[in-house]
Amino acid sequence: MRINEMHVTPIAISDPPLLNAAGLHAPFALRTIVELTTNDGLYGLGEVPGGAEVTTALEAARAIVIGRDPFHLNALARALDEAFGPSGPGRVHGAAWNRRQMALVFSAVEVACFDLMGKATGRPVVDLLGGAVRERVPFAAYLFFKHAGAGGALGFDADPAAVGWPASRQAAALDPDGVVAQAQAMSLAFGFQSLKLKGGVFAPEIEARTILALREAFGPETPLRIDPNAVWSVETAIRWGRELEGVLEYYEDPVRGQDNMAAVRAAVKIPLATNMCTTSFADLPGSVRVGAEDIILSDHHAWGGLRSSMELGRICRTFGRGLSMHSNSHVGISLAAMTHLAAAMPNLTYACDTHYPWQSEDVIVGGKLRFEDGALPVSREPGLGIELDRAALAALHANYKACGLARRDDEAEMQKVQPGWRFQPTRW
Amino acid sequence: MRINEMHVTPIAISDPPLLNAAGLHAPFALRTIVELTTNDGLYGLGEVPGGAEVTTALEAARAIVIGRDPFHLNALARALDEAFGPSGPGRVHGAAWNRRQMALVFSAVEVACFDLMGKATGRPVVDLLGGAVRERVPFAAYLFFKHAGAGGALGFDADPAAVGWPASRQAAALDPDGVVAQAQAMSLAFGFQSLKLKGGVFAPEIEARTILALREAFGPETPLRIDPNAVWSVETAIRWGRELEGVLEYYEDPVRGQDNMAAVRAAVKIPLATNMCTTSFADLPGSVRVGAEDIILSDHHAWGGLRSSMELGRICRTFGRGLSMHSNSHVGISLAAMTHLAAAMPNLTYACDTHYPWQSEDVIVGGKLRFEDGALPVSREPGLGIELDRAALAALHANYKACGLARRDDEAEMQKVQPGWRFQPTRW
Repeated sequence: MRINEMHVTPIAISDPPLLNAAGLHAPFALRTIVELTTNDGLYGLGEVPGGAEVTTALEAARAIVIGRDPFHLNALARALDEAFGPSGPGRVHGAAWNRRQMALVFSAVEVACFDLMGKATGRPVVDLLGGAVRERVPFAAYLFFKHAGAGGALGFDADPAAVGWPASRQAAALDPDGVVAQAQAMSLAFGFQSLKLKGGVFAPEIEARTILALREAFGPETPLRIDPNAVWSVETAIRWGRELEGVLEYYEDPVRGQDNMAAVRAAVKIPLATNMCTTSFADLPGSVRVGAEDIILSDHHAWGGLRSSMELGRICRTFGRGLSMHSNSHVGISLAAMTHLAAAMPNLTYACDTHYPWQSEDVIVGGKLRFEDGALPVSREPGLGIELDRAALAALHANYKACGLARRDDEAEMQKVQPGWRFQPTRW
Repeated sequence: MRINEMHVTPIAISDPPLLNAAGLHAPFALRTIVELTTNDGLYGLGEVPGGAEVTTALEAARAIVIGRDPFHLNALARALDEAFGPSGPGRVHGAAWNRRQMALVFSAVEVACFDLMGKATGRPVVDLLGGAVRERVPFAAYLFFKHAGAGGALGFDADPAAVGWPASRQAAALDPDGVVAQAQAMSLAFGFQSLKLKGGVFAPEIEARTILALREAFGPETPLRIDPNAVWSVETAIRWGRELEGVLEYYEDPVRGQDNMAAVRAAVKIPLATNMCTTSFADLPGSVRVGAEDIILSDHHAWGGLRSSMELGRICRTFGRGLSMHSNSHVGISLAAMTHLAAAMPNLTYACDTHYPWQSEDVIVGGKLRFEDGALPVSREPGLGIELDRAALAALHANYKACGLARRDDEAEMQKVQPGWRFQPTRW
C-alpha cells in the first residue's frame, strides 16, 4: 500500500460571534482538510486548524508524503523533521517550520494514515491505538459569551434546527443569565453533562457570577469549568479561584506561564488544567519542575497526532497529571479522530471539549455527527468510520476563497465591534 | 478475531556458567512461552523471563485473556489491573501481583497479541508500532567473566559450531586476557561492533583493566560499556569511572539507587546508563527529580510490552534521556520482538544488549536467528516473522521439569563453586 495522492483543501466554516480573551470569532473558522489516496484505491482523511500558513506547509510536505506506506509513520516523522525541522540535515526550505507547524502537518497526515490503516485492515482507528476502554466518549457543553448570530455569510443559519439545536444558538449571551440559557438549550439539544465556560471576556466578578449561576441552575452534580485563557493576574486568579473552590471541576489556564500557574495551584484548592502553559512535549520538563498544573488538555492536532497523544497520556499517568481534551472550531473529521483517541485513552476521566455544536456545516457524508446523551459512540467501522462529502468540501473550499480570511485574527474581528480594542496578555 | 486458547509453557534452556554480581548463572535459564490461538486459526507467541512465579501468574491470567480480541489491549491491561492489581476492585486472588509480575504477564500476552495482529493484517509487528526507522538492528557482544563450559545438562554443547560460534564459547574467561579472547571470538562469529562487559564480579581494578585491554585490542572505534550491577560504592565508581573517561561509551549501573547514580553522574564525564535504578514508569519521577542517569535501557518484558516501551522512548526524548535496550537470557521469540521494537524506536541510538549467543537452543522453526555484521535484519513477514517449533518447545519444557529449578538463584549456584559466598549489595 502506497500513498499516491495528497489533496490539501483549506475550508471556511460558519462560526458564530463567540467572545474570548483574544477578541471575537470571525464569521468563518478556517480548517484544512487532507485526503490521502493509495495505489489500491483507498482514501484517508485528516483535518487541522487551517489558514494559509498550514496549508502552504502541507503542500510543501506532499513531496515527502507521496510514495510512502501509511503504516510507516516513524520514518515519515523523521523525514519531515529532516526536511523542515530547525536543524534538519536535508532542509528543503529556507525557513524551518516552528514546533506547532510541524505538529499540525504531521497530525493531519498521521490521522489520514490511521484512517487508511483502519480501512486496509478492516479495523476502527481506536483498535490501532490499543482498543477502546469506553464505548461512548462524553463531551462537554462549550459555553461562550457571544453576540447574536450564528456566523457564516449571512450571520445566521437559514435552518438552525438542521445543526441539532434550536434558534437559541443564535441568541446573544452577554451576561450570566444569557449563558445559563445557552447552557440549558445546549444541554437539552445534546445531553451534555459537563459545562465549560470560555472566560477572559468580562470582569472576573461577572465570570465568577456566571459560574455560580450555572451551579445554581444545574446543581452540584454537573461538573463546571472556566477557562479565562490566561488573562488574569495571579492575584486575581487566586481571589476568584478561592470563591469557586468546591464549585469548579477544574480551573483552566487562569494565568499565563508555568510559574504563574504553579503559584495559583499552590494557593487554590481546585485542580489547575492547561492548554496554554504546557502544550508540547518540550514544555513537559518545565511542567514537572515547577508543578504547573494538575490536568493537561490533550489535542491531537497540536501534540502531533494520535500516537503522540497516547504517549502524552502515558506521561500524564507517569507524572501524576490528569488528562482531558481540548478543541478548536472543527468539522467531523477531527471529531471522529478525537472520539477514537478519547476511547483509547485509559486515563481520560473528563468530558472532552468540542466546539462542534457551534458549527453548522460538515464535510462528511450524512451531515453532522450526533451526540447521544452528551456523548458520541465509538464507530466500529473501518478507519475513522466517516466518508468524505466531496460536494460539501468543494462548497466550503469556495467559502474559504470567498471569505477573504487567511488566518485567524480574533483581535481584528473584535475591533470591528469595539474600535481600538487591543488584546492584553494580562487584562485583569 | 477472538482468543480461544492460551498455552503457558515454562522452559529451561542451557546457560553457561556466567559470573555476575549476584553470583553465577545456573546450567539452565528459565523462560516462559505464551501461545495464544484465535477462533480463525491463527497463533501468536510471547516470551518472558520464566520460573514458577510468572508461570502461575500467567495461568491465572488465562481467564481474563480468553475471549478477547487481540487488538483490545487497553481493555486487557485494565482488566488485569482490576483482577490482580494492588487496589483492583475485582481482585480475584488474595495477594496482588507486584509491579514486575504485572509487567511480565502483560508483556507476554501483549507480544503474542501483536504477533496475532500482524498475522491478521499481513503486517510485521514493527509496522504496528509506526514502522521501521532502521532496517537492521545492531546488537552488542555481551561479555562475561565465566567458568569453562556452555551450560545445559552436560555442561557443554555436543556441537558448539551449531550455535554459531566456535568452541571458545566454552572457554573460561577469568581475567582480562580471557575476556579479550572471548570478545574476539564473539565478534568474529557474529560481527558485533559494540562490546559490553558484565562487571561486579572481580575487584574494580581488574574490571577496569579488562576494559582497557578491550580498548587496546579493539581500538577507539569500538564502543565499550561496563555494568557492575550496582555493587560499587559511589567513591569506587567515581574513582574507576574517572580512569575510564574517554574510554567508555556508557557506564551502566555502577552504583545502587537513583541518588547514588546522580552523585556519580555529577562527578564523572561518562554518560550513566541504567537498568536497575529506573526500571518502571513509577521510577521516572524520581529519575527526573534527581537526574539519576543519562540513558535508560528499555526492556519490553519489564516495562510491560511493546507499546509501553515506545512510550518509554517518548519519555526519554522528552526528558533528555538516551535510550538503549537490556536483555536477559532468552530465545528467539524475545529476540524477534526486541528487533521489531528496536527498529521502530526513533531515538534508539545504541546497539542493543542480547544474551542470545550464549544460548544453544531455540523454540523457533529453522533454529536460532543469525546475526549479520552484528545486526539482525527486521523481518517483513507478518507478525513477529517466526514460527513455533513444537517439538523443540516440548523438549525444552521437559528440560524445565527435569532441571529442578523453579526460579533464578545465582547466589545458590555460586555457593556450589564457592561455599559461603554471599551476595553483597555494595561489594567494593
